[in-house]
Amino acid sequence: MKNKIYSYRNSVCLLLMLACVSIIAQEKQKPLIIEQQGSFAVGGTIIENPGTFDPYNPTPAGQTLRGDHAYVFYQIPVTARKFPLVMWHGIGQFSKTWETTPDGREGYQNIFLRRGFGVYVIDQPRRGDAGRSTVTATITATPDEQQWFGTFRIGIYPNYFEGVQFAKDPATLNQYFRSMTPSIGPIEIPIMTSAVSALFTKIGPAILVTHSHSGGMGWLTAILNQNVKAIVSYEPGSGFLFPEGEVPAPKPSAGGTLEASGISMADFMKLTKIPIIIYYGDNIPSDPIKNPGQDGWRVRLEMAKLWRDKVNKYGGDVTVIHLPEIGIKGNTHFPFSDLNNIQIADLMSKWLKEKGLDK
Amino acid sequence: MKNKIYSYRNSVCLLLMLACVSIIAQEKQKPLIIEQQGSFAVGGTIIENPGTFDPYNPTPAGQTLRGDHAYVFYQIPVTARKFPLVMWHGIGQFSKTWETTPDGREGYQNIFLRRGFGVYVIDQPRRGDAGRSTVTATITATPDEQQWFGTFRIGIYPNYFEGVQFAKDPATLNQYFRSMTPSIGPIEIPIMTSAVSALFTKIGPAILVTHSHSGGMGWLTAILNQNVKAIVSYEPGSGFLFPEGEVPAPKPSAGGTLEASGISMADFMKLTKIPIIIYYGDNIPSDPIKNPGQDGWRVRLEMAKLWRDKVNKYGGDVTVIHLPEIGIKGNTHFPFSDLNNIQIADLMSKWLKEKGLDK
Repeated sequence: MKNKIYSYRNSVCLLLMLACVSIIAQEKQKPLIIEQQGSFAVGGTIIENPGTFDPYNPTPAGQTLRGDHAYVFYQIPVTARKFPLVMWHGIGQFSKTWETTPDGREGYQNIFLRRGFGVYVIDQPRRGDAGRSTVTATITATPDEQQWFGTFRIGIYPNYFEGVQFAKDPATLNQYFRSMTPSIGPIEIPIMTSAVSALFTKIGPAILVTHSHSGGMGWLTAILNQNVKAIVSYEPGSGFLFPEGEVPAPKPSAGGTLEASGISMADFMKLTKIPIIIYYGDNIPSDPIKNPGQDGWRVRLEMAKLWRDKVNKYGGDVTVIHLPEIGIKGNTHFPFSDLNNIQIADLMSKWLKEKGLDK
Repeated sequence: MKNKIYSYRNSVCLLLMLACVSIIAQEKQKPLIIEQQGSFAVGGTIIENPGTFDPYNPTPAGQTLRGDHAYVFYQIPVTARKFPLVMWHGIGQFSKTWETTPDGREGYQNIFLRRGFGVYVIDQPRRGDAGRSTVTATITATPDEQQWFGTFRIGIYPNYFEGVQFAKDPATLNQYFRSMTPSIGPIEIPIMTSAVSALFTKIGPAILVTHSHSGGMGWLTAILNQNVKAIVSYEPGSGFLFPEGEVPAPKPSAGGTLEASGISMADFMKLTKIPIIIYYGDNIPSDPIKNPGQDGWRVRLEMAKLWRDKVNKYGGDVTVIHLPEIGIKGNTHFPFSDLNNIQIADLMSKWLKEKGLDK
């Protein structure tokens, strides 16, 4: 009985709170009302040195090292939707991908919290806050920003693409490049996918949002774990998986040759069981060009379409959206943090609704 | 006029919301009501390779690398207190220090958000998500956890100290060790302090909360930046600063020799202008013992008391609390995440109130 009274009072209160928050929002952004938030490590392994540990004269003998886990920060809003979003960064990146944009606006973390989704942001094993690696690694401080400017399709350095959805002030570029962080050791795919699969085992059914390099690792994670209920993939960059014997020919480009991989039909069929949507941005040529920063994406978009056709042929539900084809221009390799990221998020929300994933 | 009406309506709404939240809290933890949250890089430097960048055939020539910044995640609750808290981790750690505890309870990030403070958690330069370093570094995967178990005063491996404020299940120990992450390159003190000083310049007056290795760097940051309005330091581990000519003799211990440093009287006097409190936990011996994991803390506590006396002699306001002396037993090197961390936070809140820092 006491519980019932509390429950009624809480419901009234929650409605009042939400109404109030809505009124405040007439002038400015609503506060975020977070039911719980926190962080944890998930997955990983442990190595043990032979010998006996002596606390009075410690050496590595007999000691252990835990590493190769993912690090996850999560926030669950009040009255959250059923499926939270697990957001997995791409190459050279970490959770920042989904946080404040380089020009200081809200990224997908906040945008989708506001839309009622629980949000889990990952640092994959050996990256960022998940930097404890079980292998020794040398990190070389090699200047490379001008090349990333091209590969991430902001422009052809030092020129920005005309109409690019990226703020052109130096402070933005500064934040953008400082949103990178190196890998501590090699990106061993099974280590990455097993840690993210362990996350899905821990949290239950959820929607995976990938970017670039995590695109391919995302398909593998969905094969490993049926708690991956859907995938939203921004500009997947590699790791397209076809049934053995049906793998398309490698696709050469000025940015290198893209190869697809073969997997068993049993595993491939798992990819036909969940809805998947893939988005690519602008300034991807339809015919070969000399600029590697753009041409590499031409073959990725082509491969994504072949992959869509193959999965759908076997009964799957893959959509590929090339944003300029639906009239959305100027997006870089990071549509979710581009200047029009609310519009990009609206597309994702619409798709989630269509697929019944936003209950 | 329109603004006034909005403002009145908002105030009423805010009060209603807070009242409701308070009622809901009768059964369970209140939701966090976050006015804004986000992340950014701050400080750092840039290196430039000679030569000219060729986007069509990229090499390191003519490219830049931004690195050595700190990475900061912040949350500001509604109706926040005047001074936010800047939380700076210790050696081998990152922002996780202040997040969910190893046994899954709320850490200082959430505890002090609930108490109305804005909270900024740092990854210092070359650590965690601030891993872009301007120097090449080799990270060795050396098993070392049993030694940290001792140095962090959980016990003498594999035995826990009797009554230690640390959960003894394997899952807790697993999360604890996975809360470590390596430095990408050396911990160059001026790089650390200038980045954190840049943070204080960006956000304005705030209270610095340090742990272990950031203790000494915290004093230096306060000398650099008058926006450091107070310091709460948990178990500062090194970097005690005395006026030149008044530096105490080095203090040998089974855990190594602790040396203090000399600085100009002008710089030293800056440390007398702000309130500072230092806390040390339990299982620190008062006389030399053979266990390096404990004995190293004996000399740190002794040095902290000498430092307190020196700063106070010149008109400062430093308090050193050795927790067992006020009846709080069993704390490790991480009092803020120990089992009794609410009690530890209460001490900090009380001190902030006494000093008028919680307005």
